[in-house]
Amino acid sequence: MVDPQQTFNMHPIGVIHTPYGEKFAVPRQPRLVESIHCTIELFAPYCDPQACIGLEGFSHIHVLFVFDQIPEDKFRPMIRPPRLGGNQRVGVFASRSPFRPNRIGLSILELEKVEVVKGKSVIHVKGADMVDGTPILDLKPYIPFVDAISEARGGFASEKPHLKEVVYTPEAQQQLAQGEAKGELDPQALAEILAQDPRPAYKGDADVKDYFAQLMGYKVTFQVHGEQVLVVALQKL
Amino acid sequence: MVDPQQTFNMHPIGVIHTPYGEKFAVPRQPRLVESIHCTIELFAPYCDPQACIGLEGFSHIHVLFVFDQIPEDKFRPMIRPPRLGGNQRVGVFASRSPFRPNRIGLSILELEKVEVVKGKSVIHVKGADMVDGTPILDLKPYIPFVDAISEARGGFASEKPHLKEVVYTPEAQQQLAQGEAKGELDPQALAEILAQDPRPAYKGDADVKDYFAQLMGYKVTFQVHGEQVLVVALQKL
Repeated sequence: MVDPQQTFNMHPIGVIHTPYGEKFAVPRQPRLVESIHCTIELFAPYCDPQACIGLEGFSHIHVLFVFDQIPEDKFRPMIRPPRLGGNQRVGVFASRSPFRPNRIGLSILELEKVEVVKGKSVIHVKGADMVDGTPILDLKPYIPFVDAISEARGGFASEKPHLKEVVYTPEAQQQLAQGEAKGELDPQALAEILAQDPRPAYKGDADVKDYFAQLMGYKVTFQVHGEQVLVVALQKL
Repeated sequence: MVDPQQTFNMHPIGVIHTPYGEKFAVPRQPRLVESIHCTIELFAPYCDPQACIGLEGFSHIHVLFVFDQIPEDKFRPMIRPPRLGGNQRVGVFASRSPFRPNRIGLSILELEKVEVVKGKSVIHVKGADMVDGTPILDLKPYIPFVDAISEARGGFASEKPHLKEVVYTPEAQQQLAQGEAKGELDPQALAEILAQDPRPAYKGDADVKDYFAQLMGYKVTFQVHGEQVLVVALQKL
C-alpha cells in the first residue's frame, strides 16, 4: 500500500515559452486567449524526435506542468477562485487554483505542429495559460472518445468568463502600431488577454488606477472603466 | 529558466481502491468499464473535508496519479500501443502508455459522491483504470467549457475499442452466482472488463490458452475464442 510519506522525484521534460512575463494577466484557463502561439522546448533525452511520432494526428494535447512560481507552502484546504468574485471560498480540489498540493497544472492546448530544430522536437501550441519558462512534466494526446465529455456538469464554473471591450489611448494606439510593425506586439492576442480583465477578482468598477502587466516583452499599462479596459501605454521592457 | 536537472518532490495526497489486483486486465482507458465503483481515500492533511467543498457540483474529475508499478527505467522514446495491435510503434508523447517520463497518469472519472468518514473525505468515483493501491497526486474538477473539446481529432485512437462477447462455462456460471450472492462479484462489471479482451494486443485468434486475471479479489481464468471471451473459472484469492 501507499506510504503517505513516499516521495516521487519528477524532472522537467521541457519548458514552455509564452508571452506572459509574470503571473499577473495570465489567462485563468487555457484556450481563453486563442491567438497566443507558444512553443514547448523539450530537453534531452525527451527531445528525441521519435518520442513525438504520431502526435500530429491529434488536434489537442494535455500539458502537465509545475506551478513553479507558487511557493511550496503549508497545505491550505480552501481557496478563493476568481470566478466567484474572489470573496467566496471553495475546496482546493474543486478548483484549478495553482495553490494546491504538488503544484501540478493541467492545460489542454491546441497543437499546431511539431517541428524538429537541430535534431530536437519543438512543439507549437495555441492558447497556453502558463508563465514564460514554466517547467513541463508530461505531454499526452487528447483522445476525444475518452476526454471530451459534453454532458459533464461544470459546478460553479459552467460558463465562459465575461469579456470586456479593449480600447486604447491615442498614445497607446501609436505604440501598438509601432510594436506591431516591429513584429513584437500582436494586437489581436493583446486584446484577447486584456478583455479577460486581469485584475484581482475582488476589484470592482470603482477601482480606476493604473495596472501593469508584462506581456510580449512589453510593460502594458491599463485601467479598467466599467466594461472597458483602457490601454494607456505600451513600453518595451 | 528551467534547469533540466531540477527535481520536484511530489507526495501522494491519497490512494485509490479498485477491483484490479494487478496491471493485467486493467482497462486501457478510463470509463470503458462504467460499472466499476472505486473510492479515493485522502491522506492527512488533504482529507480535511473543507478541501472538497464544491466538488460535488462537478459530474467528473481529473485524477492525476503515479504509475508506481512501472519501473523508473531509462527513457524509451517509442512504445507499442495496444490500439495498434501491439506491433506498430508510436512516440511515447503520442500515447497514454504508462511507460513514460515522470510516470504520471491522468484519468477523467465520473464523480459519484464525496463522503466524510471519521472526519476524512472519501471520494467515490466510477470507471477507474488504475491498479488497486495506486498513489494519487491531485484531483481537479472537469470544467466542460475548458476541457470538453468535441471537435478534437483523435489520431490513431479515434474510436472506442471493439468489445467481445463474454460467456461462461457452466462451472464458472455457478461460481459467478455464488460470488454474486456473497456480494463479492459484480457480473455486469466483470463482463465489461473481460469484453475488452485484456490479452496482450499482439495475441491473435489462434491463441487459445488459459489467461488469469486478479479481479474483485478473485482469480479469473478465461480463454479467448475469436469474438468470444470464455470464462472458465472464478476462484477466490
